[in-house]
Amino acid sequence: MPEKSFPTTVKIVEVGPRDGLQNEPTFVPTAMKVELIGRLVRAGVTTIEAAAFVSPKWVPQMADGFQVLREIDRHQGVVFSALVPNLKGLEAALEAKCDEVAVFAAASETFSQKNINCSIAESIDRFAPVLERALREGVRVRGYVSCVLGCPFDGEIDPHQVALVASGLYQMGCYEISLGDTIGTGTPLNARRMIEACAKDVPVSALAGHFHDTRGMAIANVYAALQSGIAIFDSSVSGIGGCPYSPGATGNVATEDVVYLCDELGLTTGVNLPALVEAGEFISTVLGRETSSRVARAMAARRARAASSHS
Amino acid sequence: MPEKSFPTTVKIVEVGPRDGLQNEPTFVPTAMKVELIGRLVRAGVTTIEAAAFVSPKWVPQMADGFQVLREIDRHQGVVFSALVPNLKGLEAALEAKCDEVAVFAAASETFSQKNINCSIAESIDRFAPVLERALREGVRVRGYVSCVLGCPFDGEIDPHQVALVASGLYQMGCYEISLGDTIGTGTPLNARRMIEACAKDVPVSALAGHFHDTRGMAIANVYAALQSGIAIFDSSVSGIGGCPYSPGATGNVATEDVVYLCDELGLTTGVNLPALVEAGEFISTVLGRETSSRVARAMAARRARAASSHS
Repeated sequence: MPEKSFPTTVKIVEVGPRDGLQNEPTFVPTAMKVELIGRLVRAGVTTIEAAAFVSPKWVPQMADGFQVLREIDRHQGVVFSALVPNLKGLEAALEAKCDEVAVFAAASETFSQKNINCSIAESIDRFAPVLERALREGVRVRGYVSCVLGCPFDGEIDPHQVALVASGLYQMGCYEISLGDTIGTGTPLNARRMIEACAKDVPVSALAGHFHDTRGMAIANVYAALQSGIAIFDSSVSGIGGCPYSPGATGNVATEDVVYLCDELGLTTGVNLPALVEAGEFISTVLGRETSSRVARAMAARRARAASSHS
Repeated sequence: MPEKSFPTTVKIVEVGPRDGLQNEPTFVPTAMKVELIGRLVRAGVTTIEAAAFVSPKWVPQMADGFQVLREIDRHQGVVFSALVPNLKGLEAALEAKCDEVAVFAAASETFSQKNINCSIAESIDRFAPVLERALREGVRVRGYVSCVLGCPFDGEIDPHQVALVASGLYQMGCYEISLGDTIGTGTPLNARRMIEACAKDVPVSALAGHFHDTRGMAIANVYAALQSGIAIFDSSVSGIGGCPYSPGATGNVATEDVVYLCDELGLTTGVNLPALVEAGEFISTVLGRETSSRVARAMAARRARAASSHS
């Protein structure tokens, strides 16, 4: 595969407050979500998925999305988005003054049926009025494609199938397409093949990598995606979240680890790693769980060693 | 950087019974070490670093190396090696009928001084009689270079410095040079730069990657090393071990994760992943610690889910 030159700037889309918390069993009070988002902003994160306007019956952790978006401080240049499954969700997001919304489709027919109760084509059709309305209101729409490197039901997914869904969402008006390895089975070579299939139909600058670290491959996949020209990555501070299809397994790649990789590769993210690690420690404490970020763990171990050698 | 085509076969050097256990605080009885090695062999691992003939005063976990090597079953085609710091260690290894021994130098002057109390050049000189004697006895010698991507004292290490040490060991008669990111600060680009510097002086087929996962970069570094033509990787089942310079941090990359990556890339390792995961579960139980292998965790989570859906 030909190696493109790396991007010089990488956009981090922090999905911890939504994709992360949504998959955590511990209920997090609104004030703690607001505090987390404030810390992320102070660490230099400029795109944050802050809420999901979905049924609180199905996702109780997301029930306070409106309050979260009302209570956070807004900042010039910081984009707050929310996941919306339909027009009703969009209306809530508009009322909450989201800068951006996100819709979601799957690259796997069976997953689409089981997750959102319709075929892939139907799901894209259903988003047409959401896109139309959002764009009319001047709100950008991001499109998620899940199961791009494997499906818990169908196994391997044809890269051309992923490209078809990605380009469907792009042509409908999504300005950015996030390619999600929902179950974290992907490895660098099939990630590159999938990305290169999508890049035939969607500009690579409009593609984002969304890797789960379920099998420890996420950072390698981010690196491979950078080699294919991807410059946008979704990640979750402290690696919060999990894989709903593998309880107990690791979820989203940790933002700290992606930022460390980018820093070391000389790519600009605008994120301050120590401040980000502190934000991660905050939410890990709230959740009562250990961080999944190995960078955060190494930094904590180093601090503990320095403290013990001083005392 | 030009991308070489991947190797088709990857040699896994299992260092868990030595590099792994040496850095674990829990004392492991001889019988458990023998059981672990037996399980690794049955999983298809063909090169195992089984012991270190170093001072038991400094490394009590390695005090039973002779017994371990006497009690394990020997198999045609399976290589058992031991780390030896000097002629005395080599003599013990020869008496224990090691198929191979390993010597070690550092790429960092300060690390060399602090770790083995002499300069890099002196350390290589000291190994000359070890090499001479081992080769005379028909025992191959592997050379380790530590701190190839960073030093806890000196920080960044010049790739040419690494190449100098690697070629010193190679010219002295080491058949294989293992390049160790001892503190796990390396990332794919500097790994490739370092490997490519070494490959100017040592055939790439004689170079091995030895990555620590302290900051979660190890699998990405393995992938980058594969892209540079490296086909030999050191790893530790269940990721046992740690970083002596970052207590609490992750150590060697987990063999399970390297094998998963290779399997998914279509590269042959000869290792059976489920059997390897069982060997990792065995030693994790003995050590009373959770596995560091994300692949093993994902497989355990999947099994737990399957079991609960059947009951």
